Amino acid sequence: MISQKMVGLVKGSSVIRAMFEEGKQMAAKYGAENVFDFSLGNPNVPAPAEVNEAILEIVKDTDPVKLHGYMSNAGHEEVRKTIADSLNKRFGTSYNEQNIIMTVGAAGGLNVALKAILNPGDEVIAFAPYFGEYNNYVSNFDGKMVIITPDTKSFQPNLSEFEQKITNKTACVIVNSPNNPTGVIYSEETLEKMGEILERKQKELGRTIYLITDEPYRELAYDGAVVPWVPLFYRNTIVGYSYSKSLSLPGERIGYLVIPKEADDFEDLAAAAGVATRILGFVNAPSIMQLVIERCIDCETDLSYYDRNRNTLYEGLTKLGFTCQKPEGAFYLFMKSPIEDEKEFVSIAKKYNLLMVPGSTFMCPGFVRIAYCVSYETVTNSLKKFEELAKELKLFKG
Amino acid sequence: MISQKMVGLVKGSSVIRAMFEEGKQMAAKYGAENVFDFSLGNPNVPAPAEVNEAILEIVKDTDPVKLHGYMSNAGHEEVRKTIADSLNKRFGTSYNEQNIIMTVGAAGGLNVALKAILNPGDEVIAFAPYFGEYNNYVSNFDGKMVIITPDTKSFQPNLSEFEQKITNKTACVIVNSPNNPTGVIYSEETLEKMGEILERKQKELGRTIYLITDEPYRELAYDGAVVPWVPLFYRNTIVGYSYSKSLSLPGERIGYLVIPKEADDFEDLAAAAGVATRILGFVNAPSIMQLVIERCIDCETDLSYYDRNRNTLYEGLTKLGFTCQKPEGAFYLFMKSPIEDEKEFVSIAKKYNLLMVPGSTFMCPGFVRIAYCVSYETVTNSLKKFEELAKELKLFKG
Repeated sequence: MISQKMVGLVKGSSVIRAMFEEGKQMAAKYGAENVFDFSLGNPNVPAPAEVNEAILEIVKDTDPVKLHGYMSNAGHEEVRKTIADSLNKRFGTSYNEQNIIMTVGAAGGLNVALKAILNPGDEVIAFAPYFGEYNNYVSNFDGKMVIITPDTKSFQPNLSEFEQKITNKTACVIVNSPNNPTGVIYSEETLEKMGEILERKQKELGRTIYLITDEPYRELAYDGAVVPWVPLFYRNTIVGYSYSKSLSLPGERIGYLVIPKEADDFEDLAAAAGVATRILGFVNAPSIMQLVIERCIDCETDLSYYDRNRNTLYEGLTKLGFTCQKPEGAFYLFMKSPIEDEKEFVSIAKKYNLLMVPGSTFMCPGFVRIAYCVSYETVTNSLKKFEELAKELKLFKG
Repeated sequence: MISQKMVGLVKGSSVIRAMFEEGKQMAAKYGAENVFDFSLGNPNVPAPAEVNEAILEIVKDTDPVKLHGYMSNAGHEEVRKTIADSLNKRFGTSYNEQNIIMTVGAAGGLNVALKAILNPGDEVIAFAPYFGEYNNYVSNFDGKMVIITPDTKSFQPNLSEFEQKITNKTACVIVNSPNNPTGVIYSEETLEKMGEILERKQKELGRTIYLITDEPYRELAYDGAVVPWVPLFYRNTIVGYSYSKSLSLPGERIGYLVIPKEADDFEDLAAAAGVATRILGFVNAPSIMQLVIERCIDCETDLSYYDRNRNTLYEGLTKLGFTCQKPEGAFYLFMKSPIEDEKEFVSIAKKYNLLMVPGSTFMCPGFVRIAYCVSYETVTNSLKKFEELAKELKLFKG
């Protein structure tokens, strides 16, 4: 007698989460050092020391009623002001606390934004490959996903198909750069064209189309790559940010939404996001973590660790005959499956204790995602297993 | 171009939250000591010292990757085990970690439970007066609220009307005891009869009806009153608990669901709740607060502070000629409005800087809610203002 929608969701569940659970069981069985679990984006680089120092300070210095009490649903004002100031410094914007809503991670923020925007039957466009959870978030509000097929050469969005698929039902578009699962950064050129298309289509259709940009990987960009600030390319942009990856705090659920005042119906939209935060049951982002962010606004994670993993893995796999997209950001490597059915490939790899996620989870079959936010030893040791796998598949003669 | 559902919700917004914001503005204008803000259930008693001590210990003792990382969506296993053990000791139950799902407060938990249960059009029964947010939570999943009229003598649920209003569309019932806004504890007799009715109706209708019990006020019971453990009276009970009030942690968003194995479709239901936690955007309850709960499982808030407020306010108001329901638990006092339209009464009271919430917010017009989780000085000083108010309304000649 449970919800029928949930019956399907439980069955499909999250392939990634199921693998995470399987990985834990395999680690218990074979020993953690013999399992190469590349399934979940759970950062292995610890949070910067400043985070724990901030927690200790906050607990000592803050009135406990303020520290642990309710605040406005949008979050502590001074925290939101600090974030706005920091964004202004980085991107030349002019946000203030009214443009920032603290959220329970980016997952919480995306749900809040979609709740604020969607009417039942509205269409939401996303570019494959994308994080499959978007399907569930959109379904929470009875929206309909419209998927743009991937450009498997560059993994930049396919903009001509995009333009064709915008209709008067299109309420919003979701992008994610640096991208999960490809590690590709959407270029300024891409975003400029996307913004032009959206402006044109808005006029043509006489409706607002919001662009939601999911940015948990913003700070994870390698080789000095610049991640463009999307609102500079399109007025009706809502940014969903998370500290899960940038400060290695995924279990703490802290992030924010940016709703620029230039966005259509800004006041209604910001008010709706505040109310949505409350009635979806978040009420507010965890108080202590909001205060941590205020103190750690300029902290950075140790990017060099992921960068070493990235290079080692990319070079190692390429040498073994695998075809990989070189990641520019995030901590995922997207690899072509050497056999057509990537789910079968994932199964074969499991025999070598290699856990990867099938690309079909990201609406992009024929590829697999390797999350390299693991220890360097896991990466180097896994390459021996990948070699055995490559040999079994006759990619590599050794 | 925002969601049409949200347009209405923003307009109606939360009367309680609007008052909270207004109270903050009034405090800035008149000085905090001259504003008597009884609007929000934001505990003024600080969290027990053990909470902050636990945070300091956890930060020092726990591997940061584990401390701040992802865990299973249902929460840290050892935390869930600790909670199960504690409940077993208190209520003679036999729960284990599989019966416990950590949630982002009770608001998060209720949304998770409703997402797991409801199909569009399903009916959810609640007994007036009740926390108005239930309407929004049920609406999140396209359920339909069915309201049982209040028994304004005892404020125990009206069970004969309840029995009549159960239909083959009834998917669940929500109760809340100690009750917000009345402070009444639902008696064993009430729960026994309620359980009997539900069992009978389930058989008659050939369907499962879940009983969701919202219990943030469980530990706040005065004069040694016992709050019955609802699952002992009805098999298909789901408990939604929160530490917001019992440990004064409302801003931290930490609570749990109990799904007993005796419940129909237990495995599907528990799995659905885990998946719902993820896809609603919570992902998991904040990690550090989960670990705090593990260490503070036996901590208690300073109930004597609320008890003194309760007695002082109840006696003071009664002497002034107001008619009040004496609270048995929680930190709310439900008072009859001396004039028919309680919203007008609330307006008049505002002239005296007295902020209360109209009963219509709780589906019970003609009453007002006074949240006495404020300082004792606020209570004693407010009584002078209540006296002036009583004089204006000719309740009290002085």
